[in-house]
Amino acid sequence: MADVKKVKKAKAPKVANPLEATIDVASQEMIVRAQELGIDTVFDRAVTMKPCAIGLQGICCKNCSMGPCRLPLPKDGIEGEDTRKGLCGATANTIAARNFIRMIAGGASAHSDHGRCVAEVFMAAARKETEAYQIKDTDKLLQIAPALGVDITVDVDGEIKDRDIDEIALEVAEVALAEWGKPEGEILYMKRAPEALYEKWKKLGVLPRNIDREIVEIMHRTHMGVDQDYKNLMKQGTRAALADGWGGSMLATDLQDVLFGTPYPVQSEANLGIMKEDHVNLIVHGHEPVLSEILVAVAQSQEMVDYAKEKGAKGIQLGGICCTANEILQRHGIPTAATFLQQELAIITGACDAMVVDIQCIMQNLANVAKCFHTKLITTHPIAKMEQDNVIHIEFDEAYALEDAKKIVKMAIDNFENRSSEVMIPQYKSSQVAGFGVESIQYHLGGTFRGTYYTLNDNIINGRIRGIAGVVGCNNARTKHNDGHIKVVKELIKNDVIVLTTGCNAIACAMEGLLTPEAAAVHCGPGLAEVCETVGIPPVLHLGSCVDNSRILLAATEVVKAGGLGNDICDLPAAGSAPEWMSEKAISIGHYFVASGVYTVFGVTLPTSGAPVFHKYISDEFEKITGGKWDLEIDPIKHAQKMIAHIDKKRAELGIDKARERVLMDMADRQKLEA
Amino acid sequence: MADVKKVKKAKAPKVANPLEATIDVASQEMIVRAQELGIDTVFDRAVTMKPCAIGLQGICCKNCSMGPCRLPLPKDGIEGEDTRKGLCGATANTIAARNFIRMIAGGASAHSDHGRCVAEVFMAAARKETEAYQIKDTDKLLQIAPALGVDITVDVDGEIKDRDIDEIALEVAEVALAEWGKPEGEILYMKRAPEALYEKWKKLGVLPRNIDREIVEIMHRTHMGVDQDYKNLMKQGTRAALADGWGGSMLATDLQDVLFGTPYPVQSEANLGIMKEDHVNLIVHGHEPVLSEILVAVAQSQEMVDYAKEKGAKGIQLGGICCTANEILQRHGIPTAATFLQQELAIITGACDAMVVDIQCIMQNLANVAKCFHTKLITTHPIAKMEQDNVIHIEFDEAYALEDAKKIVKMAIDNFENRSSEVMIPQYKSSQVAGFGVESIQYHLGGTFRGTYYTLNDNIINGRIRGIAGVVGCNNARTKHNDGHIKVVKELIKNDVIVLTTGCNAIACAMEGLLTPEAAAVHCGPGLAEVCETVGIPPVLHLGSCVDNSRILLAATEVVKAGGLGNDICDLPAAGSAPEWMSEKAISIGHYFVASGVYTVFGVTLPTSGAPVFHKYISDEFEKITGGKWDLEIDPIKHAQKMIAHIDKKRAELGIDKARERVLMDMADRQKLEA
Repeated sequence: MADVKKVKKAKAPKVANPLEATIDVASQEMIVRAQELGIDTVFDRAVTMKPCAIGLQGICCKNCSMGPCRLPLPKDGIEGEDTRKGLCGATANTIAARNFIRMIAGGASAHSDHGRCVAEVFMAAARKETEAYQIKDTDKLLQIAPALGVDITVDVDGEIKDRDIDEIALEVAEVALAEWGKPEGEILYMKRAPEALYEKWKKLGVLPRNIDREIVEIMHRTHMGVDQDYKNLMKQGTRAALADGWGGSMLATDLQDVLFGTPYPVQSEANLGIMKEDHVNLIVHGHEPVLSEILVAVAQSQEMVDYAKEKGAKGIQLGGICCTANEILQRHGIPTAATFLQQELAIITGACDAMVVDIQCIMQNLANVAKCFHTKLITTHPIAKMEQDNVIHIEFDEAYALEDAKKIVKMAIDNFENRSSEVMIPQYKSSQVAGFGVESIQYHLGGTFRGTYYTLNDNIINGRIRGIAGVVGCNNARTKHNDGHIKVVKELIKNDVIVLTTGCNAIACAMEGLLTPEAAAVHCGPGLAEVCETVGIPPVLHLGSCVDNSRILLAATEVVKAGGLGNDICDLPAAGSAPEWMSEKAISIGHYFVASGVYTVFGVTLPTSGAPVFHKYISDEFEKITGGKWDLEIDPIKHAQKMIAHIDKKRAELGIDKARERVLMDMADRQKLEA
Repeated sequence: MADVKKVKKAKAPKVANPLEATIDVASQEMIVRAQELGIDTVFDRAVTMKPCAIGLQGICCKNCSMGPCRLPLPKDGIEGEDTRKGLCGATANTIAARNFIRMIAGGASAHSDHGRCVAEVFMAAARKETEAYQIKDTDKLLQIAPALGVDITVDVDGEIKDRDIDEIALEVAEVALAEWGKPEGEILYMKRAPEALYEKWKKLGVLPRNIDREIVEIMHRTHMGVDQDYKNLMKQGTRAALADGWGGSMLATDLQDVLFGTPYPVQSEANLGIMKEDHVNLIVHGHEPVLSEILVAVAQSQEMVDYAKEKGAKGIQLGGICCTANEILQRHGIPTAATFLQQELAIITGACDAMVVDIQCIMQNLANVAKCFHTKLITTHPIAKMEQDNVIHIEFDEAYALEDAKKIVKMAIDNFENRSSEVMIPQYKSSQVAGFGVESIQYHLGGTFRGTYYTLNDNIINGRIRGIAGVVGCNNARTKHNDGHIKVVKELIKNDVIVLTTGCNAIACAMEGLLTPEAAAVHCGPGLAEVCETVGIPPVLHLGSCVDNSRILLAATEVVKAGGLGNDICDLPAAGSAPEWMSEKAISIGHYFVASGVYTVFGVTLPTSGAPVFHKYISDEFEKITGGKWDLEIDPIKHAQKMIAHIDKKRAELGIDKARERVLMDMADRQKLEA
């Protein structure tokens, strides 16, 4: 094992200090290892390249070639009138708002384009054009069909009968695909929101017309000389973000569930230590489960396991990175190898025989790192290739899904024998339970007889559970890896706030052991601990990938519907957080939460600090519009405390602030509160 | 009149030197005027704010919040391997390609969203839901219907009859609107291209599926960690740019022609001198003619003229800026007041009673300038508002188009009496003939009997016309206003290259008097002069607004179809140019020309110089792929000479390089060439 402290002292200051780069010991070891081998990782590059301060604060405009116009920083506060402007006269507010909603466009397009790809595979399955994919979860199909206006029963001579499931699937596929580009109407899923929220959106004029159009309109409005009113720009930002959360992302989640099965709790493990020296290690990385679902099946097939043994390995170890990890974890219990920031480290183990990537959050430097090892780096998606020569592109085609998957798994196995002796897998991994969702929360936390969110609400009302937090998002090399994630989540559960998590926050929590029922006794306040222990769930519930943030929206809606906690999402004692966000998707997610009424705190930075008036608008002013608001808090403990303060404010508004003292409430008490 | 030289000396160096800022005397006078009044204009701001060199060269990546990553400039050439990379490992090529195609996304969305808005008005007209708009040009409707797969005849019991025009209009509206988001198929207009070109696109896999999807896919691919292969990124850039040129823009042009009439040559005037001190001056600015068409009708109505007289004015002077100017010029002969860079100056005359803006290229500083005068600045489009308090928003609704237009015209008239005495209109304007198009070129330059492009081709083959140039695009405050435009165009026509122009280049040419038949004798080489004088056309043909660049694509296609000059656009002795480009639209236009086979030279700068390999790819490598290529040439004379060299290369390839010596060719000669 490499000596962390020794390397720290020996190296020049232009590489990362492993102890400052991450809280994770496995990662610290691997950073040292990389430095010993002379391979730079994102942790080192974060030291050598400083971000542009003006861009970081949202006030660099490069939307026309008279620029880039970089406005002066408002360092010492702006005295009097803010006269900063670009060549065209664009103010700091205009520039920051343009940049902000272009980030929404980037994020919404990523989620939605992923959703469209799934919808196309769904269509192929519904048309029975592919053998690899079938309509697997018909319960889920029947659940979503009505929300898409598809009948699930049929009137045969006055008698109501179940409609043929293939027919339903085909119509769902058609209606779903049309959501991306239909010329009239509005996104159908918007009506799944609480009625008060839907009516609010309608009144504000922010109901999205279709998914693509709202993204395109952002690009138009932010073009030079179009929309120059930050409020109006944000209105479109809201419309597009909603088209993501309640549109593209929600369709992605639902259609994936129908195709691959709705997740239910499964046990697994997390961190680089899941890799095995004597196994073929096949790591999948990215976001779209369309390929990885098939890879899982193929890698687990007897044929491939036998082939691996033939080649001298004891078996095949699959592992995931980023949200592809979350997808195959929640449906198949495949262990998680790494967060976003650890992707290079997985290769630096020397034990990664193949890394298969699909889309989003894949570092181009993987190719440079792979060059130093035997690792086959395989791109698979037509829209995501890499420039470097050593990258292998095996274009995945759903019509030949099994063949493509076999080719990839075989390539990994064949590569096993090419390993050099320098394998170093850090021996750290944690247990995790993942695979929660709207349905399983209902099952676990729901009422015994009713199977609704009634009991969850009860426990919120009686104060055992103080509130609900969604803590999600990426890692960011500008902050200490996982530090913000873990501190925020621990502070929340310590204060009886149950946490719903997705994305790299979920992986961080898994690595820290927070996704186990046992974590309740160690880390939770007494109320939350009691609930978790009674029901047997972790205090942090892993709801999946970043498109699965839509599950949080629907869970919040179920809580509203179960009653007793107001009639809109903004009434709930709930808050959102992304302590270490990095990608444009996070901004889109953050904004659809804000637009759905959630107080949402980001860590790291927000590209708004250069435009204080705009920042105030998306925080304080927005709260008056949607009930949700943006906030920035870099200190993780303060970050969590702000969320708790908001939760307490909402508890007070609901009149349940005093209930936290009581152990139980009877029906009469609750009816009093509801009145 | 202000003394240009005096002010130049008196002022601190932090304002523009009028003589260096523009070649236009009217503008020079107005810049001085602004400086005297202490009002800053874009010319001054270009002096005080320098662009970011890294962003300018295309190697600043702000697509995730680990950045903005600013790569070092390749100042002294890159020795050996280019190891520059961002935090994720993105190379200079990846970053420049991402930025480049996001510019295409911005530009394509601007044109296409404009087109969609027109298509929606067209639908309202086809459904007879509006009184203000009708299907005006039924010839054009019948011309485009087949290209959209809409039958114009109907089989009644074996007899072929003309189909009801209302029925055709309705179906055209439906098919057209579906082009933005249909879930399957490809953009129908792609097949209007020469067959060889269509087949080339098909083989390359760049046929756009619908308009919005290609833009959204750009946003996805350029998201952190998706596409990291500049060639693959550019493939999508091509697909989206084609969706603009042959999709959104072409539909905008066609549907506008059907609604408002296909332009035919009209005489008018251009420059600030068209404003009249004793008239109500109503200036319309932007790009979308949906509102301005109605404004023209209302402003010319007896009721409004009488009202203006009642208020002490001699009448109402309408004037246009940017492409709204081009739209109402080409259909109604309304004079052009100003180019993009002159927009502030129009208000600084003190005689602008109202400036009505719609979308695109509107400077936010207009609001600050308007504050110094009596000018009512009116935004009209729901997607384009302004932050400043003094801006009036009158939201234009096509259902109440006439009422809205009347309100606006009345507001301008009512404001006439609020003028202060400080009116200063520079006394410069030029005559122009505008309103050319595919149809009128056919008429003017076509064969007497056939009405095709036969005679034009003849004159190219026989060498009187050396070739065709499309010179288009914006102004840019980073270069001397109109200097590049005029030098490039003059050099081309001097060398017998006929110029098709749109956008602000067209306005610059108008201001310089190049859009008159008389210009031929003064500025053209002998061959082109002879053709222009024989036919009675200007050597520079004004084809309209920036969406009307689609007219150039179709004109080029007609030239191919007329025969004798190869079988693809890339075979033609033709070249494209944007000497003073500024907006993302220009990059989209440039790229759909390159992707359609046109050698395209930009002035000012290209956001590719920081990534030499990527730059080489879109120039030399692209030529092997599509036959078109990008080039950058800042010096206007060299710029034109490069275009001429390309034209001569194509003439040589066609075997017509020697024909430039001859006066006439007979049919036998031509057949020999065609063989």
